[in-house]
Amino acid sequence: MAGFAEPIARLIDALKLLPGIGQKSATRLAFHILKRPEEEAAALARAIADARGRIRPCSECGNFSEDELCPLCADARRDRTVVCVVEEASNLAAVERTGLFRGLYHVLGGALSPLRGIGPEELRVVPLVERVRGGGVHEVILATSPNVEGEATSVYLAGILKPLGVRVTRIAQGLPVGSELEFTDDQTLAKALEARREY
Amino acid sequence: MAGFAEPIARLIDALKLLPGIGQKSATRLAFHILKRPEEEAAALARAIADARGRIRPCSECGNFSEDELCPLCADARRDRTVVCVVEEASNLAAVERTGLFRGLYHVLGGALSPLRGIGPEELRVVPLVERVRGGGVHEVILATSPNVEGEATSVYLAGILKPLGVRVTRIAQGLPVGSELEFTDDQTLAKALEARREY
Repeated sequence: MAGFAEPIARLIDALKLLPGIGQKSATRLAFHILKRPEEEAAALARAIADARGRIRPCSECGNFSEDELCPLCADARRDRTVVCVVEEASNLAAVERTGLFRGLYHVLGGALSPLRGIGPEELRVVPLVERVRGGGVHEVILATSPNVEGEATSVYLAGILKPLGVRVTRIAQGLPVGSELEFTDDQTLAKALEARREY
Repeated sequence: MAGFAEPIARLIDALKLLPGIGQKSATRLAFHILKRPEEEAAALARAIADARGRIRPCSECGNFSEDELCPLCADARRDRTVVCVVEEASNLAAVERTGLFRGLYHVLGGALSPLRGIGPEELRVVPLVERVRGGGVHEVILATSPNVEGEATSVYLAGILKPLGVRVTRIAQGLPVGSELEFTDDQTLAKALEARREY
């Protein structure tokens, strides 16, 4: 055939906009959707439209939320003196899964990237500074990714947060748990050595 | 957080029903959808519901179609004397992409699989026999997958089609184009030797 029927072609094109989904995967997903019961496809369509329509950024931390405040910011049991700064809400979910952090979060909405034209104005930096200036925050944990952009973002934030008199920390870099020293890249090993701790 | 906001959790669950999408991929896709403009999410939702709602099996060959007849069966320029039998409409698309086949198709809707309780009644076998009995078909090309189930399906179909006086052929098995003989599995190499052709 010249191509697929128009609704199928449009579905494939829409699926291809998802991250990590190319022409082949999109086609496979589309054919799967076409083979499933109509209710299942309708439920998926509704879930997408609903989630995007009902979810907005938490006015405090930028996390995805159904309400003005996300469940974390609204939770009185969370420690309001510690703020963990992450690039994206998905990173927040990852920190939350560790179950170790009981403070609040601040979602930047990305990392500094001069190459992609992302400066401090494109990120939620001012709201972070305002939160710290507002008082009550004793420590800001910088949990941006340990790559070039995340590192630059942390260095930048530390530079503007420390003068405000708050404790600023950075999550540790080192060997991943369960990894083999032999197969660790040099930079990671260097970081792990540098950051060695007393037994 | 205990979990995600309800609309996000529901979206992740719906995405997890797609093939090859586990919890992690579904979460990544969901977060991506939440970050994109609302129109893009709405377009994806619409494309899913639309495609599933508007597409049905072609009454002739079983291909996905918007109309009673799919574009291929409706195309007067296609050679009606040759029918290529495939397991799924997605396989049809693969054969079509070669650009070499100008005949019509017949989508079985799967392959015989006693283990999964799929017998001839679960497949579009009777409509195939009826098409051949209806006359005008000179050759049936069996293009089921070269695995155990596809092979069994082809053997079964050849057994009931040949007595009808039609030519029945099977797509060739051999070394994939661009592969290395050294790394070819024994069964494929055996098939390739068996099916060798005169220069």
